[in-house]
Amino acid sequence: MWKKSFFDSLENLGVPSHMIKRSSIGFNDIWKPILELFQHRKIPEHGWSNFQIRQLLNVLRNLDSDKDPGSIRIGEREGRISTDILNEISGGFCHGIGRSGELTAAQPKAAGASLMQNLTNKIVLSLIKALGLPNLKAALTVPFGTGMSIGMAIRGALNYHKIDFHGKPIVLMTQIDHKSPRKGIEYIGGVLKIISGRYGENYYAKEGVFTNIEDIRNIYQSNSNKISAIVSSACFFAPRVPDNIKEIAKFAKENKIIHIINNAYGLQSPVLSKIIRQSIDAGRVDAIVQSTDKNFLTPVGGAVITSPNPDLIDTISKCYAGRASASPVVQLLVSLLSMGKKGYLSRIEIQKQNRKLLEDSLTELANEFNEHIIECNNPVSCAMSLKNVNPEKIKDLGGILYNLRVTGPRFINIHKDPFGSCTSEMKWPYVVMNAAIGVKKEHINEAVNRLKRAIKQIQ
Amino acid sequence: MWKKSFFDSLENLGVPSHMIKRSSIGFNDIWKPILELFQHRKIPEHGWSNFQIRQLLNVLRNLDSDKDPGSIRIGEREGRISTDILNEISGGFCHGIGRSGELTAAQPKAAGASLMQNLTNKIVLSLIKALGLPNLKAALTVPFGTGMSIGMAIRGALNYHKIDFHGKPIVLMTQIDHKSPRKGIEYIGGVLKIISGRYGENYYAKEGVFTNIEDIRNIYQSNSNKISAIVSSACFFAPRVPDNIKEIAKFAKENKIIHIINNAYGLQSPVLSKIIRQSIDAGRVDAIVQSTDKNFLTPVGGAVITSPNPDLIDTISKCYAGRASASPVVQLLVSLLSMGKKGYLSRIEIQKQNRKLLEDSLTELANEFNEHIIECNNPVSCAMSLKNVNPEKIKDLGGILYNLRVTGPRFINIHKDPFGSCTSEMKWPYVVMNAAIGVKKEHINEAVNRLKRAIKQIQ
Amino acid sequence: MWKKSFFDSLENLGVPSHMIKRSSIGFNDIWKPILELFQHRKIPEHGWSNFQIRQLLNVLRNLDSDKDPGSIRIGEREGRISTDILNEISGGFCHGIGRSGELTAAQPKAAGASLMQNLTNKIVLSLIKALGLPNLKAALTVPFGTGMSIGMAIRGALNYHKIDFHGKPIVLMTQIDHKSPRKGIEYIGGVLKIISGRYGENYYAKEGVFTNIEDIRNIYQSNSNKISAIVSSACFFAPRVPDNIKEIAKFAKENKIIHIINNAYGLQSPVLSKIIRQSIDAGRVDAIVQSTDKNFLTPVGGAVITSPNPDLIDTISKCYAGRASASPVVQLLVSLLSMGKKGYLSRIEIQKQNRKLLEDSLTELANEFNEHIIECNNPVSCAMSLKNVNPEKIKDLGGILYNLRVTGPRFINIHKDPFGSCTSEMKWPYVVMNAAIGVKKEHINEAVNRLKRAIKQIQ
Amino acid sequence: MWKKSFFDSLENLGVPSHMIKRSSIGFNDIWKPILELFQHRKIPEHGWSNFQIRQLLNVLRNLDSDKDPGSIRIGEREGRISTDILNEISGGFCHGIGRSGELTAAQPKAAGASLMQNLTNKIVLSLIKALGLPNLKAALTVPFGTGMSIGMAIRGALNYHKIDFHGKPIVLMTQIDHKSPRKGIEYIGGVLKIISGRYGENYYAKEGVFTNIEDIRNIYQSNSNKISAIVSSACFFAPRVPDNIKEIAKFAKENKIIHIINNAYGLQSPVLSKIIRQSIDAGRVDAIVQSTDKNFLTPVGGAVITSPNPDLIDTISKCYAGRASASPVVQLLVSLLSMGKKGYLSRIEIQKQNRKLLEDSLTELANEFNEHIIECNNPVSCAMSLKNVNPEKIKDLGGILYNLRVTGPRFINIHKDPFGSCTSEMKWPYVVMNAAIGVKKEHINEAVNRLKRAIKQIQ
Repeated sequence: MWKKSFFDSLENLGVPSHMIKRSSIGFNDIWKPILELFQHRKIPEHGWSNFQIRQLLNVLRNLDSDKDPGSIRIGEREGRISTDILNEISGGFCHGIGRSGELTAAQPKAAGASLMQNLTNKIVLSLIKALGLPNLKAALTVPFGTGMSIGMAIRGALNYHKIDFHGKPIVLMTQIDHKSPRKGIEYIGGVLKIISGRYGENYYAKEGVFTNIEDIRNIYQSNSNKISAIVSSACFFAPRVPDNIKEIAKFAKENKIIHIINNAYGLQSPVLSKIIRQSIDAGRVDAIVQSTDKNFLTPVGGAVITSPNPDLIDTISKCYAGRASASPVVQLLVSLLSMGKKGYLSRIEIQKQNRKLLEDSLTELANEFNEHIIECNNPVSCAMSLKNVNPEKIKDLGGILYNLRVTGPRFINIHKDPFGSCTSEMKWPYVVMNAAIGVKKEHINEAVNRLKRAIKQIQ
Repeated sequence: MWKKSFFDSLENLGVPSHMIKRSSIGFNDIWKPILELFQHRKIPEHGWSNFQIRQLLNVLRNLDSDKDPGSIRIGEREGRISTDILNEISGGFCHGIGRSGELTAAQPKAAGASLMQNLTNKIVLSLIKALGLPNLKAALTVPFGTGMSIGMAIRGALNYHKIDFHGKPIVLMTQIDHKSPRKGIEYIGGVLKIISGRYGENYYAKEGVFTNIEDIRNIYQSNSNKISAIVSSACFFAPRVPDNIKEIAKFAKENKIIHIINNAYGLQSPVLSKIIRQSIDAGRVDAIVQSTDKNFLTPVGGAVITSPNPDLIDTISKCYAGRASASPVVQLLVSLLSMGKKGYLSRIEIQKQNRKLLEDSLTELANEFNEHIIECNNPVSCAMSLKNVNPEKIKDLGGILYNLRVTGPRFINIHKDPFGSCTSEMKWPYVVMNAAIGVKKEHINEAVNRLKRAIKQIQ
Repeated sequence: MWKKSFFDSLENLGVPSHMIKRSSIGFNDIWKPILELFQHRKIPEHGWSNFQIRQLLNVLRNLDSDKDPGSIRIGEREGRISTDILNEISGGFCHGIGRSGELTAAQPKAAGASLMQNLTNKIVLSLIKALGLPNLKAALTVPFGTGMSIGMAIRGALNYHKIDFHGKPIVLMTQIDHKSPRKGIEYIGGVLKIISGRYGENYYAKEGVFTNIEDIRNIYQSNSNKISAIVSSACFFAPRVPDNIKEIAKFAKENKIIHIINNAYGLQSPVLSKIIRQSIDAGRVDAIVQSTDKNFLTPVGGAVITSPNPDLIDTISKCYAGRASASPVVQLLVSLLSMGKKGYLSRIEIQKQNRKLLEDSLTELANEFNEHIIECNNPVSCAMSLKNVNPEKIKDLGGILYNLRVTGPRFINIHKDPFGSCTSEMKWPYVVMNAAIGVKKEHINEAVNRLKRAIKQIQ
Repeated sequence: MWKKSFFDSLENLGVPSHMIKRSSIGFNDIWKPILELFQHRKIPEHGWSNFQIRQLLNVLRNLDSDKDPGSIRIGEREGRISTDILNEISGGFCHGIGRSGELTAAQPKAAGASLMQNLTNKIVLSLIKALGLPNLKAALTVPFGTGMSIGMAIRGALNYHKIDFHGKPIVLMTQIDHKSPRKGIEYIGGVLKIISGRYGENYYAKEGVFTNIEDIRNIYQSNSNKISAIVSSACFFAPRVPDNIKEIAKFAKENKIIHIINNAYGLQSPVLSKIIRQSIDAGRVDAIVQSTDKNFLTPVGGAVITSPNPDLIDTISKCYAGRASASPVVQLLVSLLSMGKKGYLSRIEIQKQNRKLLEDSLTELANEFNEHIIECNNPVSCAMSLKNVNPEKIKDLGGILYNLRVTGPRFINIHKDPFGSCTSEMKWPYVVMNAAIGVKKEHINEAVNRLKRAIKQIQ
């Protein structure tokens, strides 16, 4: 990466040549991965040091015109900032990403940010493929979360397929009790039809909340001709199980409707990746949406839309109006480089162990209070019944845990409000906890301990 | 802000009491503005030091649960990050802002980010009011640019007024040749009708591109009953002049249609603020959209939606699907604090001087080449005719300037493509340059110099 | 630390009171250790987060006058700096430490730096006492290494005891083949007399290089009346063993001469601390000098002078001429806080394991090449004979390892130059390696591997 | 500096070649000065950006072995640090500078720090030469202030000239009432003889405190044969004027004694540089000592020793015992690069204006209170008599100003203690203020205002 003339210029500065030569070896070892990243454009095997990450950002941001010391900038927006702190808290990409025409278009004022974005999309795609999804062909990092991204994917797919009814597009979605995807669909002007969840033995597990492909067919038929898209879900809190995505993909193919998979935090689970890979092979999957923070340990605010069809990704990127904040993209890049492929795979391994630990600990707790674990095999979370707890006091449990500084557990008291359970067929209240990627073992142990304390307190 | 017990604890550490007492005066002077900001919740008179800005961010981010050293986090998303660099390049707000229900809802895991967002909205509103718009009542900082924000404002206004046709909403827009607002409207499912620009003497200036209220009425009548909204424009590149917004506001009121003003970079201009203030008083203005980077010198990626109606802002904030990246919001906060009210007003003053300098310099250039300045009084940009330049060579001019490291000038060769001129009535090609807020005087001089060189080169 | 009025000022900013209350718990947990440090003035049990360390530095540096936004500075030196980077790379203490009168005097322009320095001295003393030296009563962090510090300790002790011959002070020193202590003594105008090392069975180990108390007595007698001080050594590379410091202390007491212990990197070894503690109790020890980087993992450039006599430390601090760089002091403070007492003790534990690993690995190597480990029980380093290596090629071994990127091993080829062995009685060449505090287990394994490769290469 | 292969590797990442080519121009402009610095090794014309300074430090520090990711470190000190904050607050040079043999020797473990040190010494020399001292041939940056450095310069010169009396070296010094130089000389074992200051008309100014060459000769004769060195002073607070250094240089040459000039903050004054240049030409000047913070706006803690004799500088560097903190050196480097030659010269220009402003303002004040300005032409400070102030209340004046947050003015009440006036011949009390390099015009105005307020208050 560095010219010989640079090392030559260090001669005769009081340091013998053999020392400089020896030092240059370590020096080059630091810089080599940066050059290789540009050459190979995929996730590095090993995580990078903070220094290397910062240097990559330096290199990229200094290709933007606002960093060019000789530039004359006479436009209405030129990446001018009021204080250098803004360079720090934005990663230094003041021009954002994209241009008015397209989210991924090269911005003439921001070659660096444009390269950064392309690189990030290639790197995240290389990792996702390695996670068991080799049949994906393109990835787009977008500057908002899964809810907005599901909307954007549908909007792009409508454009791609030139579906342009006079009326609003109708979108089916299997029931997950989460407001964001619903709002994301309404945001782009879609009309939502929910396929209600059911409870019982199912295609995935001995018990759990699932959706029925027959229910989907029925709703489809009663809205015939006008359904534009269906959104299926790979992951939600236990006792919800993944949708039967393979069947939904076949159904979408048969009926020529757009199929988007909500895979919000599913990339951490090889089981879910396998289901999605098989669905792509067996039927129609237009695009898959996943959160950057839930899967890749970034701050909240980004998502990755992937697809087996690179042209569709291209059209999706074109429906975004104008330039966007570079922050969610650069944050993803930084996170991926800091972990590397091996670092990510080892975190998946730990997640698997933690998921088992969570179930084992909750099982013990359940035995003590005559409750049971719902056997739904959710790869991230685990739900325990609260059938023997006074229903009037379940809300208190949440408050007690909050005061014990436990965040994340959800208490669903179906006697008050079934929202959260994704069905109206649930039989008992329950609590659900997550062993998501990045959680620490001690947090799992301690959360179960404090839950125990809380239950005892209200008895 | 700091307890007396803290200063007491410094006693007997080898430093005499009177020295500690004296030091505490300067110490408190540093911290006082931070406390006052929380108390007064408006833009400070004077810009803050970098240290003060960083401390405010420290205070806020340490109220988020991911910074709580004693918290047990067992949810699927907990602001976990892979490397501390992510804290730096995000401002440290790993939980983002909002919750699934609403962009401005308090996020229980992120009290700090929630406070930060509320504070930012209050501070930016206080500044905008001081800029000549006291009749605004609420502001919302959104995590995307003006194009997407115009869409979001329309989506929110449709929800607020419960306008829910079976078909898609039809949106009128006065012609500005910029793709983002168009795409922003289509993104939310709107159908766009453009009111073509005209060229000539008009309500605002001796000459320039303008829109005609009669044209609006005509289009409205031919689409009667089904128009949901109209988007007017306060600012675009010369020779475009501001729309006759007051008349459009009256028209919107009469016909009960939503009226959004695209004020992308208009806050830097007291003239435009006056027009908008009068329009609000005279007719109907639902919301006004402005870019954070173009007006407030942040990195690209945010916008502020303001309104005389706080309930509407509330509904707009509720239509966003899920949490969002905190970056555009914290970047705005930092920029505003670094400038303070006085700093911003002085930048406006300099902009005015620069705008005059730009016109004077271009006039001189025009005289030299038998061209003329289009007298459209655009408060930011200035356009010079290129009627005597060989039309085949106008494109080359852009290339030459690009290679001379000048970014921002736009060459509109109406003989090839009128896009950019906002009309089909323009008579000659022209070049337009901007004296936008934050530009340096030397850049204006040098840009005109290099333009001169470029014109000579192609002669 | 934070007033109630601060938390009150967060009310009505869109975040419910109970959330603010909950957040303030974590917030206060972050700040609590800072207040406690000022109150208790000893090393914290647990290491601090980077944030906490940075906040402590912020608090302290903002008590210096160059940070006071309201100060008027009209002196010839006012902590003015040309760029803010200087604040970063100095820890922000632009006024340095001390005043012309004394290294530890409170500087009226720098209350913060003065507090910082006092705090550091108290904290490092608290740790050193906990390491097995409760009979120490004061510590002084000085802005240079052990060599210069030995000189300073002698200069201060001469002043303290008002020893003022017309001629230069004569200083005895047991032989350690290291230039710095010698130069440190000559720097202050001392005349050095070395007590030669001997090789064989001794008061400390079965074999090794040691010094003989009889030799000391002999030299003393032949210079009678004019010896001012003696410097003994607690630590040097194997096969050197610690001096018989207890006997030297008794000797110093009997003869009323100043006794300084060079304990350069000895604090990492409980064995050495025990020897020093017993020496203080049994005889005369004026001061003990230890490196900050070798013991406490700071950058090079500081030392800590400790003493059972606080008045002596006071006089030593007074002999330094003028203010000094605050860097070595703040670097020590930061390092101690980042580790905490438990963190330091656990590093000592690991050092002990690594020392054993080093000996085990080298023993295996020695067996393979018919060499042996010198059984001198050096607590940090381990020496292996090279009696079967061609003496002409020993120098090459060093070069090969340097090119294999191994730094730190020392090859002493007594056939060429006995310097390094601290004696003229050594029988064979040898190599010595260190398992010093902070070294990684893998480095030990890999260093021995590469040594093996190097030996094979020259065979 | 960057290989073509790097820019080639950016191709086909979504950004057209011509954009990359254009971006690389600005990119190279950022890096070019860094390469040029290594090639030219003198102070750059223009100050560098923070980014450039940080990159230079990155380049250098990554040549140190503790940054080499592939190194195996098995020594007792290896630049190991406990937390990365230490890299930040040390500039990243964990190995310090020098080795046991010499302060400027290349340290095999720290090629980067060694280069950094050599570069700094060359750069500071190039600037000092340009300030009017072309007859200097070498500069050494030392890690302590002027007092200690005067001692070190004498110690080195004694070694260089192999002056080795059995007794202690006797050092003459012209009277300046500052403890540091005195202590610096005593630190190295010197015996100090002060040549008392006189008051009146003199070789330099109409009035002021000066030293008399005859007094020097007298003292010399009464101590004949045993004087090793003389220390003269170029700068001290008014009413002290510079020594008659040219005569002292001649005297030193005649009598073959070492001559060190204390030029603590004199480099900011072309007048003083001229005096020193002429002295070197006319007689004997061994070394000149100047503070880095007082002249070059660094944090306190460094000095530069310069000499017309490079071999002497070499010997001085060799008398330091062991490695030293790199902080004072890297701080000087950063400061010089941030200013550049032009930046430094413009600060000198401003200093001159400020000095005039100070005298004008004080003159006005003096007129008001029937005091007068002492006409001693001190190039930095200005003294005003306090003959009409009640002597009992002069101390109060200092206290009042301290509480008014004014630091730096000195009140010398000769009726209580003449220390500070450098003579016993002064007639009235006075106050002295400094217009030193880096001070702001507003501070001068405000300091005089507050002094006026203080005088009125005690009347």
